[in-house]
Amino acid sequence: MIRVAVVGGSGYTGGELVRLLLGHPEVRLDQVTSERLAGRAVAERHPNLRKATDLTFVASGDLEPTDLVFLCLPHGEAGRSIDRYRGSAPRLIDLSADFRLRDPAAYPTWYGAAHPRPDLLDRFVYGIPELHRERIRGADLVSSAGCNATAVILGLRPLVAAGVIDPSCIVVEAKVGSSEGGAEASEATHHPERSGCVRSYQPTGHRHTAEMVQELGGSVPASVHFSATAVEMVRGVLATAHVFLNQDLDDRALWRIFRAAWGQEPFIRLVNARQGLHRLPEPKLLAGTNYCDIGWQRDPHSNRLVVISAIDNLMKGAAGQAVQAMNLMHGWPETTGLGFLGLHPV
Amino acid sequence: MIRVAVVGGSGYTGGELVRLLLGHPEVRLDQVTSERLAGRAVAERHPNLRKATDLTFVASGDLEPTDLVFLCLPHGEAGRSIDRYRGSAPRLIDLSADFRLRDPAAYPTWYGAAHPRPDLLDRFVYGIPELHRERIRGADLVSSAGCNATAVILGLRPLVAAGVIDPSCIVVEAKVGSSEGGAEASEATHHPERSGCVRSYQPTGHRHTAEMVQELGGSVPASVHFSATAVEMVRGVLATAHVFLNQDLDDRALWRIFRAAWGQEPFIRLVNARQGLHRLPEPKLLAGTNYCDIGWQRDPHSNRLVVISAIDNLMKGAAGQAVQAMNLMHGWPETTGLGFLGLHPV
Amino acid sequence: MIRVAVVGGSGYTGGELVRLLLGHPEVRLDQVTSERLAGRAVAERHPNLRKATDLTFVASGDLEPTDLVFLCLPHGEAGRSIDRYRGSAPRLIDLSADFRLRDPAAYPTWYGAAHPRPDLLDRFVYGIPELHRERIRGADLVSSAGCNATAVILGLRPLVAAGVIDPSCIVVEAKVGSSEGGAEASEATHHPERSGCVRSYQPTGHRHTAEMVQELGGSVPASVHFSATAVEMVRGVLATAHVFLNQDLDDRALWRIFRAAWGQEPFIRLVNARQGLHRLPEPKLLAGTNYCDIGWQRDPHSNRLVVISAIDNLMKGAAGQAVQAMNLMHGWPETTGLGFLGLHPV
Amino acid sequence: MIRVAVVGGSGYTGGELVRLLLGHPEVRLDQVTSERLAGRAVAERHPNLRKATDLTFVASGDLEPTDLVFLCLPHGEAGRSIDRYRGSAPRLIDLSADFRLRDPAAYPTWYGAAHPRPDLLDRFVYGIPELHRERIRGADLVSSAGCNATAVILGLRPLVAAGVIDPSCIVVEAKVGSSEGGAEASEATHHPERSGCVRSYQPTGHRHTAEMVQELGGSVPASVHFSATAVEMVRGVLATAHVFLNQDLDDRALWRIFRAAWGQEPFIRLVNARQGLHRLPEPKLLAGTNYCDIGWQRDPHSNRLVVISAIDNLMKGAAGQAVQAMNLMHGWPETTGLGFLGLHPV
Repeated sequence: MIRVAVVGGSGYTGGELVRLLLGHPEVRLDQVTSERLAGRAVAERHPNLRKATDLTFVASGDLEPTDLVFLCLPHGEAGRSIDRYRGSAPRLIDLSADFRLRDPAAYPTWYGAAHPRPDLLDRFVYGIPELHRERIRGADLVSSAGCNATAVILGLRPLVAAGVIDPSCIVVEAKVGSSEGGAEASEATHHPERSGCVRSYQPTGHRHTAEMVQELGGSVPASVHFSATAVEMVRGVLATAHVFLNQDLDDRALWRIFRAAWGQEPFIRLVNARQGLHRLPEPKLLAGTNYCDIGWQRDPHSNRLVVISAIDNLMKGAAGQAVQAMNLMHGWPETTGLGFLGLHPV
Repeated sequence: MIRVAVVGGSGYTGGELVRLLLGHPEVRLDQVTSERLAGRAVAERHPNLRKATDLTFVASGDLEPTDLVFLCLPHGEAGRSIDRYRGSAPRLIDLSADFRLRDPAAYPTWYGAAHPRPDLLDRFVYGIPELHRERIRGADLVSSAGCNATAVILGLRPLVAAGVIDPSCIVVEAKVGSSEGGAEASEATHHPERSGCVRSYQPTGHRHTAEMVQELGGSVPASVHFSATAVEMVRGVLATAHVFLNQDLDDRALWRIFRAAWGQEPFIRLVNARQGLHRLPEPKLLAGTNYCDIGWQRDPHSNRLVVISAIDNLMKGAAGQAVQAMNLMHGWPETTGLGFLGLHPV
Repeated sequence: MIRVAVVGGSGYTGGELVRLLLGHPEVRLDQVTSERLAGRAVAERHPNLRKATDLTFVASGDLEPTDLVFLCLPHGEAGRSIDRYRGSAPRLIDLSADFRLRDPAAYPTWYGAAHPRPDLLDRFVYGIPELHRERIRGADLVSSAGCNATAVILGLRPLVAAGVIDPSCIVVEAKVGSSEGGAEASEATHHPERSGCVRSYQPTGHRHTAEMVQELGGSVPASVHFSATAVEMVRGVLATAHVFLNQDLDDRALWRIFRAAWGQEPFIRLVNARQGLHRLPEPKLLAGTNYCDIGWQRDPHSNRLVVISAIDNLMKGAAGQAVQAMNLMHGWPETTGLGFLGLHPV
Repeated sequence: MIRVAVVGGSGYTGGELVRLLLGHPEVRLDQVTSERLAGRAVAERHPNLRKATDLTFVASGDLEPTDLVFLCLPHGEAGRSIDRYRGSAPRLIDLSADFRLRDPAAYPTWYGAAHPRPDLLDRFVYGIPELHRERIRGADLVSSAGCNATAVILGLRPLVAAGVIDPSCIVVEAKVGSSEGGAEASEATHHPERSGCVRSYQPTGHRHTAEMVQELGGSVPASVHFSATAVEMVRGVLATAHVFLNQDLDDRALWRIFRAAWGQEPFIRLVNARQGLHRLPEPKLLAGTNYCDIGWQRDPHSNRLVVISAIDNLMKGAAGQAVQAMNLMHGWPETTGLGFLGLHPV
């Protein structure tokens, strides 16, 4: 049993981590920080945790040494305060965007400023276990991937690795839920405005694109054309990727490629059914789970392949992915504490 | 470890039971019946169970003897086929409405026909553990309560038992989700019609009223005035009960009454906060959990007390309640297999 | 053709008024005020008005004399600034709560402070045309009714007037949409929190109760027991009223009562069908319309009558009602500019 | 004043047409057919029309000669019965898919069977007024365009016509509402399944693709790569098109191209704001209107241009477009009967 702390526990990702860690048999969560809510009950902020915990938020200045820190700070803040939190624990998993890109030059391009600690970029392992399992096992610094990036990368990596698609034209549109924007209210998230909307909120320039380019091995930034559209949903990402096959592959060959890549993965399900109601991935079925569901369909009129992948952005796209990495780092079964199957109907 | 079977596993309640039983450490679920889907994968019908089970549906005629049967048949069918399923297992939990009322005369009044097996009504224990825990422990036949009845009864029983409200005028309106109507599609559940609707679908005459009257000890059927309104939600019940205090009680006295009644209950939470965003019960926070959240507010202008209770109709209102009863019947910790805390945000 | 101005045009009620007035053949809307948005295009704030108007907001200090002012200021502000706006136009329709109650003593009780201008209370006519048509025709000051109050009063007034219900126990629960809370964002209206919620946001003490008591002729404040529950909906109110008949009335007698009261009203529809999908009022069908739909159902087990009424809170509950009053004040056909029928499906 | 009939008035498109025609000052709608509902009130099926019409459905066999027939039959049926309805009126507007494609060879490819009346294909004018205004004016047979096709074509036609994009790689994903699937209930549209879903329901092979190819002048069928994703929405299409510029164009140049093409169009709005909440098209703002809103964003990292267009699928994508065509055919102002501005908030 190790002790763990969540730094930045008032947001949605932090809350989800608290939920998972309270139910994890190998850890004791005894510190959750929030500047604004210090002294208040964690369950007041995250009402699903009522009766499950008596923890109260502490100010980050009161953080005591621990075994593992989950860093859930806003982009930028994590980078600026990394030394302080590295000093609190021998292991750290950062859920911000600050240490995801290995190339320091990518930060000015995608984040608008030079990275404050380029020396640390190589020290962090990009935290998608399905891609970097062995490196995560030995890591003391892990950077959890972006939610959209996770969905897109898991959907396309087998095809890129198999060399069967043209990497120079990948068009992806992610449909995302409102929790992706975080816990802070704004005019754009005011219910009468956001409810029922289908809103192109980031047609171009989304920062997660840089992660997709990095992990899909594309040589030029422009090879992934990514857009994000906000839809009526709280949790979830559905990424629809349009790629072009450079060879003729039938469906059996595609199954072979995806099975070879992901067939043994505990948290990836290949969803491409011929009958039934739910033939392709759907994010609402994944709420609260750590699954990434992946399906596809060949265009009978062209060489296009549409690859559809779904996750819960707060789970496989954030807190669940981080717990999966923690399990790897400590040699526990990878699925520990991540057993929730999701609901139907929902 | 016992063997269990779900009879009628293609519906929503059956599917929820399968989910819970697959994760329950003391049971082995090895039979799930469905006439229509016999031979098909259970996970095709309940896609949240993909990768979690390889079970296929069997026809009910192929049901083999087992230790416990959960009966999830439509109203009427359970009553007609009860002997057959009692023959399959020494213990049976019925999730239909067929054995909830003890008084045979209530069936013609509320269900429009005489009961086919009035001799059995006394044999069944009404399955709300918070009310009949000891009897459930010793029971071999349990009848799970109606979802709306569960929410209303748990909210009001402490007040009735304490004798502080006038039992002759209880007005309750339940806001219910679409899963309450079951898995069968109809014009009324067609998405363009049902989506976003606030529809008074049963203003009077709701059959669950009879259970409320029975368990709240009311002497006349008309003392509970119940209405159900369908709202945009898949899972969940929010029952708002308007009752009238027959004495002057301050909030401390009310807390005392509710704490005395439910303070030790693992699945009841008293939710009546002075600050924070979530001060009173909300069903969306309970999706997938076995909690019943209860809150209240005194009307400063009259002797009215508004009591608000929330559950997930498929969990505490059906499958979760049944598993809780099973745990009691077998002497296992009452919370076994029911640990999911629910999500926030959702 | 008269000239009209909307004071406080950045909110939802103001925006709805602008929409209606732009399409009204008898008026010219040439001034819309907003302190915060002065100088900005009205259609930027209310994007449905793009291409329909080039108006820009002006500061209220720049308001020029006009023929009729619609006052859409927050509660309290209207009362404090009433003289100023009465000076701008010979006629004024106030859409705030400030002049709805005739009894000055009601303000401390329901609004927590004495009224700043009790002398004016008698000058304002309560603006529900179906109740006070003749007085509105002759009025120069009209106070539009609260949205919940409008729905409840129109539903119950015929029964109260006919003397067939017990006025001492009226229990009403309104299901309300998120626009009722106005245009200002808060943590409670943040989409991940508000979406899909069924939240008892005002179980007791709702200020609209005072209007119901006043217009239903109740002699004691406590005779209307009102609660409001927020549901997933942007526009709309569904009020479910539980009343108790003091005599035996069959459905024909009830139809007679409602028809006698409202049969000639252009904006009231009696909705109580025996077949079809939409047998009772539903607010989503009323979005954008000025209708109030009213239905009912007798409880076969008691003397309860459930009366269901629905409106669009921004239309019949605010802007539409105000335009209807304006039409009356000027002798135009009452339905002028209010012809939109609503959508199906929606 | 002409007489008009709606054939197939029980569906959503038919209902929307009835709504529009009842409010149209130049026509008298006196026949609405439905086999299943013959003899029943139109307003029972389309409850928004209560109090607005006393029309009852008639069987199609009872259709009497009239001036214009709107044909709202399912795909296939229109083609088979076209002669019969051409015999009923000198002018006919078909809202099915049966006469949209000019090339008979396209039917086997996209609709799986040869066309029953290839001789008529040239007689029908494709009914998007912004593309074929002059031909519609003189037409007696008009075929209304598919909803997705309308949104995509209006968004991209100016770019194709200007020759500034590569027509060989157009990737479009439409987010569509549930009304697009029609009025018939199925398991897939059952509320608990369909609610809140983000479901890739037609990743490839959507029949509207053929219309896009035809009207965008592409020489090969595969040049438009279209997918449709079902989201939580009843009405509306948001089409996101990813196209690649073959020359360097700044935003001013793009504005010039779109303004030149659509600047004078009464029902097209260019929505590409620099500030405010609603900077790009959103379908929920268009519910009930005949607008097509079009916006775009250049990818700063590549030559991709994202073009976003939104419509109400039942209005500009069906009934509204048909009424607009009718107006043209009769020389009435094009906007007659189509003045509804849409709601905000909604």
